[in-house]
Amino acid sequence: MSDYQTALSTYDAESVTVRDRDLTSEIMGELDFGSTTYLLLKGTPPRDGEGRLVNAMLASLMVHGVTPHALAARLTYLAEPESIQGAVASGLLGVGTRYVGAMQECAAVLQAAGSEPDRESAVRAIVSEYAERGDPFPGIGHPFHKPVDPRAERLFALAEEEGLAGDHVALVRDVQSAFEERTGKELPVNVTGAIAAVCSDIDLPPEAARGLAVISRATGLVAEVIEEQSRPIAADVWHRTQERMTYSGDR
Amino acid sequence: MSDYQTALSTYDAESVTVRDRDLTSEIMGELDFGSTTYLLLKGTPPRDGEGRLVNAMLASLMVHGVTPHALAARLTYLAEPESIQGAVASGLLGVGTRYVGAMQECAAVLQAAGSEPDRESAVRAIVSEYAERGDPFPGIGHPFHKPVDPRAERLFALAEEEGLAGDHVALVRDVQSAFEERTGKELPVNVTGAIAAVCSDIDLPPEAARGLAVISRATGLVAEVIEEQSRPIAADVWHRTQERMTYSGDR
Amino acid sequence: MSDYQTALSTYDAESVTVRDRDLTSEIMGELDFGSTTYLLLKGTPPRDGEGRLVNAMLASLMVHGVTPHALAARLTYLAEPESIQGAVASGLLGVGTRYVGAMQECAAVLQAAGSEPDRESAVRAIVSEYAERGDPFPGIGHPFHKPVDPRAERLFALAEEEGLAGDHVALVRDVQSAFEERTGKELPVNVTGAIAAVCSDIDLPPEAARGLAVISRATGLVAEVIEEQSRPIAADVWHRTQERMTYSGDR
Amino acid sequence: MSDYQTALSTYDAESVTVRDRDLTSEIMGELDFGSTTYLLLKGTPPRDGEGRLVNAMLASLMVHGVTPHALAARLTYLAEPESIQGAVASGLLGVGTRYVGAMQECAAVLQAAGSEPDRESAVRAIVSEYAERGDPFPGIGHPFHKPVDPRAERLFALAEEEGLAGDHVALVRDVQSAFEERTGKELPVNVTGAIAAVCSDIDLPPEAARGLAVISRATGLVAEVIEEQSRPIAADVWHRTQERMTYSGDR
Repeated sequence: MSDYQTALSTYDAESVTVRDRDLTSEIMGELDFGSTTYLLLKGTPPRDGEGRLVNAMLASLMVHGVTPHALAARLTYLAEPESIQGAVASGLLGVGTRYVGAMQECAAVLQAAGSEPDRESAVRAIVSEYAERGDPFPGIGHPFHKPVDPRAERLFALAEEEGLAGDHVALVRDVQSAFEERTGKELPVNVTGAIAAVCSDIDLPPEAARGLAVISRATGLVAEVIEEQSRPIAADVWHRTQERMTYSGDR
Repeated sequence: MSDYQTALSTYDAESVTVRDRDLTSEIMGELDFGSTTYLLLKGTPPRDGEGRLVNAMLASLMVHGVTPHALAARLTYLAEPESIQGAVASGLLGVGTRYVGAMQECAAVLQAAGSEPDRESAVRAIVSEYAERGDPFPGIGHPFHKPVDPRAERLFALAEEEGLAGDHVALVRDVQSAFEERTGKELPVNVTGAIAAVCSDIDLPPEAARGLAVISRATGLVAEVIEEQSRPIAADVWHRTQERMTYSGDR
Repeated sequence: MSDYQTALSTYDAESVTVRDRDLTSEIMGELDFGSTTYLLLKGTPPRDGEGRLVNAMLASLMVHGVTPHALAARLTYLAEPESIQGAVASGLLGVGTRYVGAMQECAAVLQAAGSEPDRESAVRAIVSEYAERGDPFPGIGHPFHKPVDPRAERLFALAEEEGLAGDHVALVRDVQSAFEERTGKELPVNVTGAIAAVCSDIDLPPEAARGLAVISRATGLVAEVIEEQSRPIAADVWHRTQERMTYSGDR
Repeated sequence: MSDYQTALSTYDAESVTVRDRDLTSEIMGELDFGSTTYLLLKGTPPRDGEGRLVNAMLASLMVHGVTPHALAARLTYLAEPESIQGAVASGLLGVGTRYVGAMQECAAVLQAAGSEPDRESAVRAIVSEYAERGDPFPGIGHPFHKPVDPRAERLFALAEEEGLAGDHVALVRDVQSAFEERTGKELPVNVTGAIAAVCSDIDLPPEAARGLAVISRATGLVAEVIEEQSRPIAADVWHRTQERMTYSGDR
């Protein structure tokens, strides 16, 4: 009566199997968590250097000063301190298209460009599509990190070092140059664009690129919630917001 | 006008600082994600072997065959395929006290036992408190993994191997023996109990122990959502449930 | 130092003001919840009949047999029975573009059509835009309710009865006819399309139309979670899914 | 093969049945939403006056100036403006035991008191239980609304007016007096305590009392998210919090 299939995991009384590895003897104690994540999301273990890149990508988006996600999680924790998972989920719901989650669309565009005859035409096609719609290209531009996003540069350097920087890294850099030329603005490849390109070069699908952001930010949100216990800010943010607020209803 | 304090992170145009390390040069490419997670949650870098234990704990709870969390995430993804973070959050909300999240209470009890004069009195105090209330002790017992939970055993073995198994690991094992004796049932320390004890021995607070479960399961839920695209089950689960359902309202 | 403005609510020790009404003397005991919802979302009290329509719209989407949202909420409740709000939130995250939430896009399209010179050109513009993209028009078509969705027909009848059916109701019906003609298929205006049109005719913005769906479904999910206590299905759904699942990983 | 039972709803092509009423002809256009909610949660239609009380309870908790829930929802909406349901869910996760959700425990305690021989012993039992544990009694006390919470007083007055104020309303008032006497502080029955008592007097279980809070606050959060579009505050709250924040990590 089996008609569902999974390739993720199974278990019996004595063992748990994850992606055809014995969890306790082949993963726990043997693989770092970046490599484990690659194995789980991709189905095959990382080749040389790929695990290191995933570890770096997971580290890159955890925290970034005060963020809307961190504030939402801390406010929810203030209101419901019994549920760490609720506070983390509250903050994760903001890992959307506007901030931390832009790598999914970027990776989808970069991966689709493989159907173009060469990189130059791919760049032209991408630029004209976004310019026509008047939309910003996801993965380039940053309000604070200029002229470069140091996290993106580090990811690119690591990919070079490991010999894993391929067509997608090259493409996102050319797309960036084309947009900078067109607009006359500084538009660095940001960390989400770099993650999109690097994930594409190590064969992770766009959803997995967004998934790394979700895991990374979940980790940061756990830290925010724990820090809220010893260095609370949520109640004060709430009260200051109240003080600034005027009720202006009129009948 | 600064009156909020954080020790988690800060940034300027050229750099991001996380727990007093330069993110790009001291963390990305340098630390595996288990060690990064320890650094972020604890504030200090892991000593020898601690990072390896965190990597192992993060791997231990990602997936476990079909779980209620995985099903909730897949059903939410079916209904709203545009939001990976929404589907993951939907599943994370089930990382509560009943299943995956039991390590928080267990770690709190183990850490509080330090105030008892010796381990024997600590065990007696814990057993009598739970027995009196008629509550099961969190972190022991498992419906499938008997007589031992292989993930717990592996964690304990790794902690021994690294010379990091301390008072809390010893305590949880003695608590287990006491409950088995009292009840005559097989009540293995399960993976959540082992995480509680190992986290306590490497100085992570109870909230961080639960936090590791949240991060680990978030990773598994990303994988579930991605697999739902190629091996969908949510729609069929929904339809079969409909077929089994009788409406029995009466006026 | 007030620089934030709200028109929603304010309070002092003795009173709470909502949309310039005294909550306790002018709303509680005086207005039904549909009228209260209209007042809160719109800022002005409903005129004759508008409250009745909102009450009907709120009732229309609460429950509909077994839904993915209900299953997600029940599974999350199984895993974390201490948090009703967590279970409801888990289910709400599926109120997206695919099922219950389609009225937002539909209302936006209907409301934007006001810039066309007449209804006929509006219909042509809408049909050609969706046909070109190959996208289904949100708000028409239903897998079970054919040839009409009884909830949509009832909403239209109530709007007629109250003299509130206007341009948008007429427009969505013409759009439906045009698509049925074009495709040769039965494509009833469904309940989300009817809500989109009726909300537009009573001056509620597209976001409020989606908001009614969120409120309505939240109500249904509370009922699902409560019923799960006396007529549990989540654990059995989980176990049956396990039985159907084959692990097919290969190394 | 039907082995699941629901009393909530069913449907066929032409109709939808909710709690044994035809949704379109017996509920939509016929019942206000408070009465519909009672019918759905309880299974039987409200008797005279009960619907009015539910309408009033649903109105009472929607909004209350700036709240942590509203801020969390607005911050999540800032970060992910495509998902109203995600922003509402983010805020709902704070409807916990500390603020808006206290009525569940309160109602459970009030309903359990029926096993005491008389009201006086019930009050004594409740007071001594909470005093012993050093816990505040949920449903009494309010930081702003003193000496009375006007929403609670209004609910009690409406219950009296409808002839529906019964043993539980009397009990919560006596519990309040006993705590005020014991502590010498002003501890008004607050709106959550009043909802707990009134729900108990109209035969709604504790979970339904909390459910009304979830529905009410969901409605308020929809309004917050819509207002954030025209009177945005989230980005400014975020930036001001950044300005107040000092990074104080030390190696």
